[in-house]
Order: sequence, then structure tokens, then C-alpha cells
Amino acid sequence: MDAAFAIPSRGGIDARGKAMAPTSSKQLIDTELPKAMDMTHHLNRLSKNRNPSSLKELYKYAAIPGMIPLGGGIPHPDVFPFEQLSALTLPVDSVSLDLPRVPEKAKQSLLSWLFGGGKRVDEISIPKYAPNPTATTVQLSTSLQYQAATGPPALPLFLREYVETVYKPAYADWDVLLNVGATDGWAKICQMLLEVGDAVLVEEWTYPGAENAFLPMECEMIPIRMDGEGVLPAHLDEVLGGWKEEERGGKKRPRVFYTIPTGQNPSGATMMGPRKKEVYDVCKKYDIIICEDEPYYTLYVGDWMPKGKKATAEEEHQIETEKKEGKEGKEAFLKALPPTYLTFDTDGRVIRMDTFSKTSCPGSRLGWFTTSPLFIERLTRATESQTQAPSGFATALTTTLLTHWGFDGYIRWLRGIKSTYKQRRDWIIDAIDDNFDLVLDGQEDVGSDEKRAVYDIQGLGKGATCYSKTVGVAEWDEKKGAVGSMKKGGKGPALVSFIPPTAGMFIFLAVHTSHHPKYPKLLLTQTPTEATRTLMDALWRQLAEHHVLVAPGWGFDARGEHSIGGPGIGYFRLSYSTLSYAQCRTAMKIFAEQLDKFFEVKK
Amino acid sequence: MDAAFAIPSRGGIDARGKAMAPTSSKQLIDTELPKAMDMTHHLNRLSKNRNPSSLKELYKYAAIPGMIPLGGGIPHPDVFPFEQLSALTLPVDSVSLDLPRVPEKAKQSLLSWLFGGGKRVDEISIPKYAPNPTATTVQLSTSLQYQAATGPPALPLFLREYVETVYKPAYADWDVLLNVGATDGWAKICQMLLEVGDAVLVEEWTYPGAENAFLPMECEMIPIRMDGEGVLPAHLDEVLGGWKEEERGGKKRPRVFYTIPTGQNPSGATMMGPRKKEVYDVCKKYDIIICEDEPYYTLYVGDWMPKGKKATAEEEHQIETEKKEGKEGKEAFLKALPPTYLTFDTDGRVIRMDTFSKTSCPGSRLGWFTTSPLFIERLTRATESQTQAPSGFATALTTTLLTHWGFDGYIRWLRGIKSTYKQRRDWIIDAIDDNFDLVLDGQEDVGSDEKRAVYDIQGLGKGATCYSKTVGVAEWDEKKGAVGSMKKGGKGPALVSFIPPTAGMFIFLAVHTSHHPKYPKLLLTQTPTEATRTLMDALWRQLAEHHVLVAPGWGFDARGEHSIGGPGIGYFRLSYSTLSYAQCRTAMKIFAEQLDKFFEVKK
Repeated sequence: MDAAFAIPSRGGIDARGKAMAPTSSKQLIDTELPKAMDMTHHLNRLSKNRNPSSLKELYKYAAIPGMIPLGGGIPHPDVFPFEQLSALTLPVDSVSLDLPRVPEKAKQSLLSWLFGGGKRVDEISIPKYAPNPTATTVQLSTSLQYQAATGPPALPLFLREYVETVYKPAYADWDVLLNVGATDGWAKICQMLLEVGDAVLVEEWTYPGAENAFLPMECEMIPIRMDGEGVLPAHLDEVLGGWKEEERGGKKRPRVFYTIPTGQNPSGATMMGPRKKEVYDVCKKYDIIICEDEPYYTLYVGDWMPKGKKATAEEEHQIETEKKEGKEGKEAFLKALPPTYLTFDTDGRVIRMDTFSKTSCPGSRLGWFTTSPLFIERLTRATESQTQAPSGFATALTTTLLTHWGFDGYIRWLRGIKSTYKQRRDWIIDAIDDNFDLVLDGQEDVGSDEKRAVYDIQGLGKGATCYSKTVGVAEWDEKKGAVGSMKKGGKGPALVSFIPPTAGMFIFLAVHTSHHPKYPKLLLTQTPTEATRTLMDALWRQLAEHHVLVAPGWGFDARGEHSIGGPGIGYFRLSYSTLSYAQCRTAMKIFAEQLDKFFEVKK
Repeated sequence: MDAAFAIPSRGGIDARGKAMAPTSSKQLIDTELPKAMDMTHHLNRLSKNRNPSSLKELYKYAAIPGMIPLGGGIPHPDVFPFEQLSALTLPVDSVSLDLPRVPEKAKQSLLSWLFGGGKRVDEISIPKYAPNPTATTVQLSTSLQYQAATGPPALPLFLREYVETVYKPAYADWDVLLNVGATDGWAKICQMLLEVGDAVLVEEWTYPGAENAFLPMECEMIPIRMDGEGVLPAHLDEVLGGWKEEERGGKKRPRVFYTIPTGQNPSGATMMGPRKKEVYDVCKKYDIIICEDEPYYTLYVGDWMPKGKKATAEEEHQIETEKKEGKEGKEAFLKALPPTYLTFDTDGRVIRMDTFSKTSCPGSRLGWFTTSPLFIERLTRATESQTQAPSGFATALTTTLLTHWGFDGYIRWLRGIKSTYKQRRDWIIDAIDDNFDLVLDGQEDVGSDEKRAVYDIQGLGKGATCYSKTVGVAEWDEKKGAVGSMKKGGKGPALVSFIPPTAGMFIFLAVHTSHHPKYPKLLLTQTPTEATRTLMDALWRQLAEHHVLVAPGWGFDARGEHSIGGPGIGYFRLSYSTLSYAQCRTAMKIFAEQLDKFFEVKK
């Protein structure tokens, strides 16, 4: 493991703990934008203690032509057992931009859809030694050798163009740095910013995998209330403005906010530009670092349109334009994407995490940070002493594929991915629609204001509430349950509510446990939260035993006060990313049947 | 980044911080060996705080056939852009077991040697969907998907057979766990065992890349004296036995020892079995965890034999047997390997780090731990919240290659790698031999006992000392330098000394700075250490300007009292792993010329 001598270093922390100017490999774009503000005070002790290699002079000489290198400690590429790598890869336009809402034949494989059984593939190939290589040539003798933490030069070049074009950061001297996926990225951010015992801002429902990075550091989660678009700026302001160390056992006000703005895990919420600007301003006010984890960013697919509902002229135009190949379609796609926090980041207080897991494959273990030169430099130091560069197999193949596709080609590929996720989102929600009596917020009066608020479970008035379709009851009483004589088409209890997601791969489904006939009895011995958990566990097991496996919501609970959910409401997270059309249909049919049984709707 | 639901977990830490029995995926070998002792008290707070996923039940149901999976959060393999990976790979017998000491033609490429310009290659191929896959089938739909931290099942199976056959651990319930290379492995060990401010035992000369894992944690290095075989057990015992917290500012006795036993970086020292047993016993006495970092293990190539020196009958037999293909040669190779610390580890206090960086390629970013079930379980938890599984490109290609080669084939491949490193070791030392007047310890009297001890610079009496060959001086005075009339063939000052390495890729070369004519004058204003550094820096730059780039020794100094080196002796580390025969010859010719100039031997 002697890569220390192979890795060039840049920048550093001086004796007073202030950041020295890094020699960024990114050419500063000639721009009127401000430079990032100094955020050195956010670094923890561990990060400040990291030193660049003391052997800089070695690298300077190593670059001189004719130098005989006895300085490094690297194996000879001749004895790398791989002489050439090849891959059969999908063309950028493999996935149609106009996939059918209802497939003619419910085949298992998506690709068999697209090619009618045949399949077009390209071949890419990477030799051990390329003829006349330049600094950006991908060849195995370089890729499979020790590499700088910054990875093969061609990849950051590509990513910088992508960030510049798609994200448009609001300051000048941002840069990118590879990591081995967002889990690694977030762990490195925590190890750079957090001290033991710190408080971390999170969404009230959040990804438990992210908690695993800081909970072992004895850091505390401070959940911020959400609605269907993500966190509420007012609550964030309230928590930070009202923070009193003495009331919090001496705990300092949080400085770090972890968020998944697009297709949030688990809630499915997607935050658009105006809300992000509000959140950013609160974060600026209290000097918060925003860590945006965006695995589902390009899986933004827009609103679900109920079958038969007529789109507005504007909606229709966007839908039709996005089906077009070429420049017009590309621009419509880019325009539809939510602006990122980077777009509002004039200070350099955003650390964005991107990953190839959803746009290429999770096995690449390849992602990148976009952030200020200070954070890039400190994360580079951390990378050198931990993961070093990502796997050369992953970077060589990914870089070669991206170069083969080209920038516009990659955008076309992303549009195809969007197309499949839109199709799958529609499949599952159509299946829910077909198996339940589905009422959209505002579409039908559900009774009192209080009741309406419960059903509009994630705010925004964009929710859907599901009633039993197969059997109704004449009347339904909140306390007694079903009463009176059964009548087909009558309205039973509201069973589940959700907001049709506009991005990602999840439906966060609220189950109205308070409508369960046993709920009142359970309340005699249990708290509402306990009673809900009791019922949700039973329902979860019942579904699993009928071969429908969903993720229980409690695993995502950041354990604060809830705006989404609360007493009498339990959650499931339903992922629709891998289901076939047939599986969607079957799963939702079973789901509806089992809910009927569970709620004892069928008398 | 929603892999939390894809990763099965096992074991854990109970509420009292004691390890619960992990459900090891390794089938315990029916053996009389003891089980690992409980080492829970060595875990740091961070590691004890790591919890396994709370959603275990999900995994249980997920395995049921016919289950419709809405629980995970994973992308569909159909839209992974890679349909097939292929590689042209070298056959196991690509490298001859009997490479020539002096090549007929000094070609640049090793392979052109072996195949006379032509090249045999095999082709391996990995489809996205394999027909009739089993749990150990490698296919891209699995490899490029989220994977358990334990990686593709076929790889640990292979590694366990390798560990069992080659290392023979002395306790029963050891297991292996993948990491993304030894740098990552060691960082994870530090994060599992060390608290801020702890002391860590290291070799007196050590790898700075390893220091970068714990120095930022404000841990202190405690260097242990070495000779040419590695650390001295007596000094280790002395340091640990004499540890007084009150004399160390309250610092606790170290519990962790970092060591590179084979082809040590930078000293090149290799520790054989008897010494390891002694060190192990001292570590057992003081309850020390031994972390053995073994990138160069299979690069153990045995003693350098001076040209013309006749081997003993036993040496001759080993040399000839190792040239043989088949079982006999394989067993001779395995027998020659130094026993590892695992071989003596009855307690489960060794954490061994292996890597594919030197046996396959660094770009694989693939290595593994071998250690006790407790440490494996805690490292698995850490892996899940950081790197997750290694890149699926790396594991798929490596596993497929290993399976294609088979176990015996892999051993044959390692023997070829050994053959090339032996050849290169011989090239560089022969080049030194040819460009200097080289005197081996014991071969010629160098004067007083005191002087002899200085030249036998790393103990063991196995060193070589180099005098100027081109020009001698009649007499040489320690204070005045060269005196009297010049006489061809006379003995000048001893310039450099070293032990010809038996493993790895480094020569640790002692420069006798005290023999420099300016040394006495420098001592008027500088300490011996400063004077040596002054001269070494000047010599390093002089060599670099003449296109010979070596690593300065001070970068490896653990800053303790030295057994290797000391006042009047500076060090360079010379790596010979990537040099061609011609480069070895040129580099050592320049080196000898520049040393003559530097020491002003040539009058």
C-alpha cells in the first residue's frame, strides 16, 4: 500500500488552522461570481489535523522526462493480469422517450419492450497501453495503477462540464472530487465537520443509512418538520433561532444539515427552487452547511396525471417536447429539473453529493462531491488516507463510456432513465388507482376541515386518499367502524393516503391506523404511537405473508414531532424501481385485498 | 444511496458493550483449535456504538420465492448500461519461473521477454444475466447492483481457502472480510480500536501512509527498534514493561501494533517465523493487537546470491525445485514463504491485511482482512456505513479471473510474480555490485569492531558496504578525508551500506554522511542529525538533477531512537519494482558517479 508517493497534493491548513490556497486543478471560469467564503471554522479537529504529504518535491521531479523513478513503490503494469477490458454497452437512446403507460404485453424485461427481443449494443474497449497516450487517455496501465485521489483526469473534466451546465453554482471557485459513492461521501463529510456529541439537522423522516455515519459519533438528530415538498423553512428558523444551549444540556447549535431534496427517502418529497431559496437563506442566517444528497436528482419525472385527466396546454407542451430527440427535448429536460441548492449557493456552504448508482449502476461505487475549494482540499486529504482513488475498473469503464457517449449523449441516456422511472411511477400509481377508490385532495369533500387536514397528509393539497373499492359500507363511524347495511359503492373508512411522487423511486404511504376497528380498544392500554406501531407491525407481517414486501416506516423516523404522520397514522415505504408491470398489478391487488381484510371492511 | 435494505447483517454489540455471537458465513472447520478470545475491551467507543440494521426481518422475508419486493430501494439492472464485460487476461504461466539474471537484450517490456514479442491471452467474460445462476455465480445484474459488505459470495470462499492453505491460522473461528485496499483497511482498524490521544506501536522506520490514519486522531507513534529482520522483541518488551503513565503525561500503554513483516516499507526487512513467535509472545503478555499489513508477502524472493558465489546444496535444491511446474514447485514456493503472525495467533489478536494491489493491480482497490469473528463483525458494520462493498467491476473481474485460474493456477500466478520481483531485485543489486567495490559483512575486515558495527548497519551481519570503484585513494582519514597519492584500487571511504532485501520492492540504503569531507565542519554549527539532513538533501537534489529519483529516508522516520541509522548516517529508499534492466544499469552508474563527486572521492 505504498501510494503516498504517487498522489500529488494541493493546498493545506497552516499552523493557525486557516486554509491555505489550494492549487485547484479546475481552471477558474472567467466570471463575475463571488468566490467561496472562508468556512475553516466548520472543520473539526480531525480534519484540521490532516497534513498533505511532506514529499511534494518528489512529485515535481517525477514529472521530468527521462527521470529514472526509484522513488515510488508501485508494481509494474506489465504484470497486471488484465491486458484489455471490453464491454458491451447500451446506446444512449436505448430507452424510448415515449414509453407506453399500459404495455401491450406485460413482459418481465424492460429491454425486451424496447427492442422487441433484439438488442442493440455498442462495444467499448480499453487497452493496457494506448498508442500515443495523453494526460486524459484512459488505459489500463494507468487506470489499474495507483492513482491520485482525484481519479483519472478525464472524469473530473466531464463532471465539471456537467455541474457547470446542469447545476450552475452561484460562486466561481467550486470544484468536484470523486468518492466511492454517496455513503462514503457522507461518511467523509461527517468526519470532516462533526465533533463527538454535535447536533445534526435532518428531515423528520430520513434515510437510516445516513444516520449510521453520525449516530456512532454520539451526535444527536434534530428533525425538521416537512410537508410534501420537504422541510419547512419556518420550522428550521424556529429550531435554530430558538436554540438555547443551556436548555439542550450544553449542546451547541447545529452547523450541519443533511437533506435529500429530490425524491426524498422515504417521503418521496421533491423541493423546487423557491422553497430551496428560503431554506438556503435560513441556513445562511445561522451559518449552516447544507449537505445535499442527490441520488434521485435526474429521476425527477414530474406530476402523475390521473388517467383520463386532461392536461393543461402548458403541461401538454412540456410532455410533448420531452418526447423529442435533439436539442429541444434536451433543453426541456434540463429546464424541468429542480434547481439545486448549488444554484443559490453564493457562499460555498453547500456540499453536494452525486452518485452514478442510479444513472449507471450501484456496483460502480462511484460518486462525487461538488463544493468549495476548502472542502474539496480537506476531503482530498481524507480520501488519500482512506479509500484513495475509486476502483480503476470503475473509473476506466465509466469514463470510457461517458466519453463514448459524449456530453449530449449522456444527457440523452439520463432522459431515457427518467422515462423508465416515469413509466414505473405511473404503473404503480395506476395500479393503486385501479384497486382502490382513490380521491384526490380537492376533488371530493371528505367532510370536516379537521378530517380534510388528516387526509391531506403531507400538505400541499396534492395528496390522494384510498378507500376500499371492492366493498363499501353504508356509513362509517370513527369509533364504531362500519355500521348499517352494506352497500356497493358506499364510502368506507379512508385506508391509506399518499402524495404521488414526482421523483425518485418511493411512495410514502400513510395508513390510517386510527380507522382500524381495534384502534380504540388498543388506546386503553397503549399510547397512540404504540397502538399505531402494533397495528402497522401486524399489517406489515400480513402483507409479507401474502408476498408483498414493503419497508416499514418506523425505520425512517428521525423521532421528532411529526408534521407528516403523527398519532393514528403509520407509514410504509413502497419502492417501485424494480417491479414489472405485472408485479405492480399483482402487488396492488393483494395490497387492496389485505387492507380490506385488515380493516375488516368486508363484513 | 439506499443500500441499507440490501445488506444482511450479523452479530452485534449488546447493551453492555459485549459482543454477541455473529452468524458467520464461514463454516467452522472441524478442528481442535481454540476459538478466538474475547477482545471486546479493545473496541473504541465509536465502534461499540455501531448498530446493525434494525430491519433484519425484511431480509428474512426477502428471500422467500415469489415475494414481490417493494422494500428495497435499488435500481433495475435492465438499465445498467453494461450488458457484458470481457477481459483479455494473462495465463497463469505467463511469467517464467526461471527468468535470466542477465537478459540477452535489454528490452523495455517484461512481456516482450517472455513471449518474444507475441503474447498469449485468455478471454474471460461476464454477462448481465447468466443462465441458471446460483449464489456463487458472477453476473453483472448482481455484481453491479448494491451488494452486501461481504462482497460476491464466490470471492470470500476463494480467500478462505487461500488463508487456510497458506496462512494456517492457529485458532478456529477466523474469517475474512473485503475492503477497498489496505489503506482503507488500516483506516478502518484505527477507527475501530483507537481513541483520540492513544499511543500506537510502530517500527522505527515506517510507512507514512499508515501514519496518516492515526496522526490526525492525535495519536502518538511509539517506535520500536529494528534490525535487518524487523522489530526487536526485547525492545518491545522494554517499552511496554517500562511504560509508566505518569511519565508519559497520563498516556495509556499502547494496545495496537502496526507492522509490515515482509519486505518492510521502507527498510526492506523480512521477519521469519522464530522472531515472529517472540514478538507475538510479547504482544500476548501485554494484550496488544497486532495489525500486520502484508502487501509484499508473496514477493518474498529469498537471499541475493552474489554472482559467482556457489550456493550450498540445500540452497541449490530449493532454487531448482522452485523452477519446476506442478505440485513439487508449488509446495517449495509455499514452504519458502515466511509464516505469518496468524500462524502463531492462538488468541485472535492479529488483524491481517492483504491486498490485490501487488498480485493483481492497485486499481482493483481490493483487499481483505483476516481476523476474529468480533473484529470481522465490527469491521462489517463500519464498512456498511462507509465504503459498502468494493466496486462490483473490481470484484466481478477479480473473482471471475480467480475462478478461471483456479486455486492452483492462482498460486502459479503468484510464483510468476515472485519470479519477476526476484529478477528485478537481482538486476538492481547486481548493478550496484558492478558499479561499486562491494564488501559483504564478514567477507573482508573493515577495521575496528566499532567500525564494523557501523557498516553492519542493520544488524544480522548480512549487509553490504559500497566503496568507490572507479577511483580509490591511498589512504582515507575519518577526519581529513582522502589523503596521500591516488592509487587505483585503493580503498576510499565507505559510501553506502544496505542489506540486500529478501522481499518486497525496496532497498533501504544507508549513506555514510559522516564520511563526507564537509561533515566535521557542519558539526561546528549543526547537530549530527541536522548535518546528516543537510548533506542528504544536497545529495538527493544532486541525484534528481542527474535523473535518478529516490525517496528520502526522513519521510519514513518514526522519530524515535534508532537502531538502524543514527548520527552520521542518512537514508534513501530505492524502489526497483518498475525499472527495466537498462534503467537499473544506468541509474546505478549515475548513482556511483554522483556519489564519487559528492564525497569528493575523485581528486
